[in-house]
Amino acid sequence: MNSINKKIEDNSSPFRGLGGYTYGELSAAQLRSLVQRNVDPANEIRAVVEDVISNVREHGDNALLGYAQKFDHVELQKLYLDKAELEELATALLPEQKQALQTAYQNIKKFHQTQLKTEDKVETMPGVTCWRELRPIERVGLYIPGGSAVLPSTLLMLGIPAQIAGCHQIVVCSPPQKNGKVNAFIAYVCQLLGIDKIYLAGGSQAIAAMAYGTETIPAVDKIFGPGNQFVTKAKTIIQSTTTCAIDMPAGPSEVLVIADETSNPEFVAADLLAQAEHGADSQSILVATSQNIIDAVNKALEKQLPVLPRAEIAGKAIANSYSVLVNDLQQAMQFSNLYAPEHLILATENWQSIVNSIINAGSVFLGNLTPESVGDYASGTNHTLPTSAYARAYSGVSVDSFVKKITFQHITPDGIQNIGPTVEILAELEGLHAHKNAVTIRRAP
Amino acid sequence: MNSINKKIEDNSSPFRGLGGYTYGELSAAQLRSLVQRNVDPANEIRAVVEDVISNVREHGDNALLGYAQKFDHVELQKLYLDKAELEELATALLPEQKQALQTAYQNIKKFHQTQLKTEDKVETMPGVTCWRELRPIERVGLYIPGGSAVLPSTLLMLGIPAQIAGCHQIVVCSPPQKNGKVNAFIAYVCQLLGIDKIYLAGGSQAIAAMAYGTETIPAVDKIFGPGNQFVTKAKTIIQSTTTCAIDMPAGPSEVLVIADETSNPEFVAADLLAQAEHGADSQSILVATSQNIIDAVNKALEKQLPVLPRAEIAGKAIANSYSVLVNDLQQAMQFSNLYAPEHLILATENWQSIVNSIINAGSVFLGNLTPESVGDYASGTNHTLPTSAYARAYSGVSVDSFVKKITFQHITPDGIQNIGPTVEILAELEGLHAHKNAVTIRRAP
Repeated sequence: MNSINKKIEDNSSPFRGLGGYTYGELSAAQLRSLVQRNVDPANEIRAVVEDVISNVREHGDNALLGYAQKFDHVELQKLYLDKAELEELATALLPEQKQALQTAYQNIKKFHQTQLKTEDKVETMPGVTCWRELRPIERVGLYIPGGSAVLPSTLLMLGIPAQIAGCHQIVVCSPPQKNGKVNAFIAYVCQLLGIDKIYLAGGSQAIAAMAYGTETIPAVDKIFGPGNQFVTKAKTIIQSTTTCAIDMPAGPSEVLVIADETSNPEFVAADLLAQAEHGADSQSILVATSQNIIDAVNKALEKQLPVLPRAEIAGKAIANSYSVLVNDLQQAMQFSNLYAPEHLILATENWQSIVNSIINAGSVFLGNLTPESVGDYASGTNHTLPTSAYARAYSGVSVDSFVKKITFQHITPDGIQNIGPTVEILAELEGLHAHKNAVTIRRAP
Repeated sequence: MNSINKKIEDNSSPFRGLGGYTYGELSAAQLRSLVQRNVDPANEIRAVVEDVISNVREHGDNALLGYAQKFDHVELQKLYLDKAELEELATALLPEQKQALQTAYQNIKKFHQTQLKTEDKVETMPGVTCWRELRPIERVGLYIPGGSAVLPSTLLMLGIPAQIAGCHQIVVCSPPQKNGKVNAFIAYVCQLLGIDKIYLAGGSQAIAAMAYGTETIPAVDKIFGPGNQFVTKAKTIIQSTTTCAIDMPAGPSEVLVIADETSNPEFVAADLLAQAEHGADSQSILVATSQNIIDAVNKALEKQLPVLPRAEIAGKAIANSYSVLVNDLQQAMQFSNLYAPEHLILATENWQSIVNSIINAGSVFLGNLTPESVGDYASGTNHTLPTSAYARAYSGVSVDSFVKKITFQHITPDGIQNIGPTVEILAELEGLHAHKNAVTIRRAP
């Protein structure tokens, strides 16, 4: 990044806003460097995480109890909360908080329900019929982080599609608080989802427990959920060494906002800050069609930032972010597709002119009245999305993530005669004679 | 496995057939052990493969030319064959071979085309609209192994869904033969698919080239295709250290056949051998409702096996396989779901009674006239399937594997008032005030 001189390097106060680049002045190599995120920052912690995984595999519950003491500073009597304990915890919620969680639940459910589809049968040749049927993944594990932010929304976003898919067993792990409980909001969401038990385990040890199983925590077939670098590293190790699958690798959250003269700079600044408050390593990228817009957004940032409770975190993230000046909205989309943002906001009245040009993005927010934060909670879409340019090849979590699509085929007596010669010739040219025999023996009169 | 005594341990000649277990006599631990496949056999080769990846990253084309000399025993002048060269190679095919490849192409295309669907918009609340749109993965890499068996069918199975998805760039890598060319069948399939270039690289070096790009071979966003343990290890390393995705981990091929008194033992034996000829580490599992059936299948195996060109390989795989005696078809399905086979054959007239009990399988073949080998080539379904019990959480390759599903949302002035309070309350309870602001600022009069 040293070769890019226009970036404002001094991020100390006074507030400098978003360091700026001009798209037309960037070489291909500079563009590549600008959109590059470090996707393997935690390789040096691999040994630590492998150690945790071995320990959990070997010592099961005892290992988990030890980690709870060490990392969560609590001596647990048992590794779960049951239905009665969750109900008791949930009584702490105010009615309007319950109502808000219920509304989010309904919207997310309504949208995700449409993703469960049956497929038609296809007769590819007379007598040869093929189709796909959905089957739920039997046992899924949902990891809900604790730590600095408590995220009941994450439990909604993972639990609802798991429920719609019909997964037989939904195992939820979350780190215990110092009182040996979980947050009341998490407890209430368990009730909404009909989940009767929550397991008290956090970090890479929770991932290991769900992958291998312990005396208390059941092993699962696929693990979902965000987490810190230890959690992410544990998930990628599990994915490459066991048959347990994971939803996707997770990096810091990010937004890219495309703005033109029809944008509202105050709204844009608010969206950039919403992303920035997640963490100092979050990125808030502004791509705008004029310098005036960039200046106006920077001015709004300077006004809105200092009054935020998480101003320090957000300020660091803004310093870690940048703006790109482009000629027009099409050029903005070129940059956006290269960046492949987790969240893309088309903060313009003209969004319909570019929506078909979107190739790489996790979730897209259209127009000036659609803030990214509605998607985090309640619009209905899922907020578990590909970060770090994974949007080039990955989709966000959906009901699809909780099912398998199994292919079926059925052949009639006529069908085997129709398809037989083709298979016989192809098996022979691949040198696989037993493959050929399996057809020939069925074609014999 | 030592604790399971019924397994016939002496696999030397004379032919012993499939060593047998009885489902009802197996403990839970024995069952787990029986269905266990080694999914990380190649961890000791990790260092070797990491070395290859670094070398390709650093030296690009030169590294690939060196590996071609070392492993493929050919001094390449260039790292690809162009359209004219592919056309020239394809002239070696007989008309009936071309016809067979065309028929397979048509059937596979017909089935996969139905997988490309548009989705409806959902108004989750008045003024809040959500939907998903498909976008192709821009750049995909298809690895087509060379070596002992040449597999043009694999290029069909990966190229057709890539084409239907609309991937902008389809990069095909295959190891060069000693004459610096590829097999004529592969060349002809390139023509069918409209692929004008094939890159001459094999093994883990080909995977590294597609993940990072070289002077000649373009970098891609997702890599597909089977291969030996070096290829598989390279794919899992790439998956966990870059944003490049992979289709799925791949292990030895396998079939599970469920048979009852309505089965034809000769057909069953032919199907078990078709799987067995893939490699000595393939598994062919027979689950049958009576000992008579198992005996009859073993007798048929003894007759069919010796005359196969690949009898030695198939014999080793059969020795590595087993049968399970069950009480009825439902119990057979219990075992099958535990095993989670890549290929499942319901070799019974009564398949309709158990088809809904299938939970874990890659591709399913229904009835006595549907051999697994039709799915390998031409029925229309994809043959790139989850092995090694990955079918518990993974689906086979389909058009889905070549697209992303991006979520969209649009909110009207009414909509932001309707959804606003919910988002404000939830953002506040998660302690994310900038998230709240992004809504509040848009709700202000």
